[in-house]
Amino acid sequence: MPGKVAVLGLGLIGGSLCRAMRASGFADEVVGYDRDGGVGELALDLGVVDRFEASLEHALSGAELVVIATPTLAAADVLGEVLIKLPAETVLTDVASVKGNLVAAYRQTRAAILADDTLSISGVAPFVPGHPIAGSERSGVDASRPELFESHRVILTPLGDGDADALALVRRLWESAGAEVVEMPVAQHDAILAATSHLPHILAFALVDALSRSELSDDIFRFAAGGFRDFTRIASSNPVMWRDIALANREPLVQAIDDFGEHLKALRDAVAAGNGAELENTFADARSAREDFIKQQG
Amino acid sequence: MPGKVAVLGLGLIGGSLCRAMRASGFADEVVGYDRDGGVGELALDLGVVDRFEASLEHALSGAELVVIATPTLAAADVLGEVLIKLPAETVLTDVASVKGNLVAAYRQTRAAILADDTLSISGVAPFVPGHPIAGSERSGVDASRPELFESHRVILTPLGDGDADALALVRRLWESAGAEVVEMPVAQHDAILAATSHLPHILAFALVDALSRSELSDDIFRFAAGGFRDFTRIASSNPVMWRDIALANREPLVQAIDDFGEHLKALRDAVAAGNGAELENTFADARSAREDFIKQQG
Repeated sequence: MPGKVAVLGLGLIGGSLCRAMRASGFADEVVGYDRDGGVGELALDLGVVDRFEASLEHALSGAELVVIATPTLAAADVLGEVLIKLPAETVLTDVASVKGNLVAAYRQTRAAILADDTLSISGVAPFVPGHPIAGSERSGVDASRPELFESHRVILTPLGDGDADALALVRRLWESAGAEVVEMPVAQHDAILAATSHLPHILAFALVDALSRSELSDDIFRFAAGGFRDFTRIASSNPVMWRDIALANREPLVQAIDDFGEHLKALRDAVAAGNGAELENTFADARSAREDFIKQQG
Repeated sequence: MPGKVAVLGLGLIGGSLCRAMRASGFADEVVGYDRDGGVGELALDLGVVDRFEASLEHALSGAELVVIATPTLAAADVLGEVLIKLPAETVLTDVASVKGNLVAAYRQTRAAILADDTLSISGVAPFVPGHPIAGSERSGVDASRPELFESHRVILTPLGDGDADALALVRRLWESAGAEVVEMPVAQHDAILAATSHLPHILAFALVDALSRSELSDDIFRFAAGGFRDFTRIASSNPVMWRDIALANREPLVQAIDDFGEHLKALRDAVAAGNGAELENTFADARSAREDFIKQQG
């Protein structure tokens, strides 16, 4: 059990992780840091953290585990800023939706630190990238709850040259919050998230944008029915967060859009050609694949 | 109030319309016909209809209003088969999701009937195309309920050369079922439905099909979260019904897919170029358009 855990960024995910640690007694002390001091005060008032530090240095000082829980794009900058301040014994992890850009930032910062002769250091803190597959339509520390991760999956993408003890500690962190931890390579994580989450968001945003710019847009929105509401729900997501995710996961996302585009083109051509057999086969295969997915999710 | 109304096809929509007419007392007698005699017997047992006729001729005989409530593609064939059997006083309407192909079938059949000197007829029954924007995840006569259309919109696409009395009768039919009736040109209806319903179905089918054929498909379905479930719900729709709708609404649907494809391409290029400003603007516009839509739906 670590003595002190520092969580940087007290939004829905960071706040919920703090609450889960306090509830399970995972650490002696759960310390929060947020660039927005008001959020930190609120977290303290709500009992989300044991202590709030307005200074990043104070938050990091003496921590055995540091969790970067800022928005996706900020995470890479925060990682660079934090890594140079940490002793080699501290374990660093994060919760961002994209992992490749963070791993690249870590490797680059570590190499720069190790190459800098003016720094007298014993080593660089190990990094265990993590991504809890959990969320809510709500955001912010006031939406945080200790059971957010219960029975949800957390994907860790440990570096090939990583530290086994560090990995074990981050595993215990999430298991103590009730999550099921799985490991996979970074590239696989980013490709899977591009396909299952980032691509559907792009499609929903593109659809609503296309329809709102159509000359029939008034009638389109007037006559849209329930299925449309469900289908476009994710187009109500935070534009800045999704901009950041799209930028952080650029190449896998472009690949996923292109793969999708080929399948859409095939269906489009089947409609144009009146090829009923191909349409029915594709629709039936898709229905059966989705039903397998639903069964699997239970 | 008409004496006899005949409903051809006792599925969810046809069955619910029968129940609504019986509940409101819209007609003296609600007679059902279905190619599947078992469905007809069930409809009678469930109290959906006053009477079930196993013969199409008997069902039509003496009806003041005939409602074609078969699946979309079958509707055009049924219209051709029925029109020649109807006296000019009977009013013909339908409930299919696509209107252009039915209007074409009506005009063609009417022209053929009028040109046939061997038929001694006074005229051809007027046709008022209709489309209730209502449905359910369930289908079949056992899912039918009298309030299915309450507070839902029904779009009528009357022919320019149509019969005002016929239109008034079909309006009263739906108003008596609690629906709000609106009128628009056939081409506008089909373009709106292509955009708001048929295109989203094609996108959901294409997405699930693309993901299920990916080399990562096992993991993709394993790690997909709640948003994916919502987004792909409509990919569990009936493949034959959607094949028929896609074939019936070919040109407007291809147009809608192509419009969408241009917007998707623009987003794809913005991701590839790392153009954060364009991504954020498009996402923000889409979110605000969707929120206006949700407010409007109340």
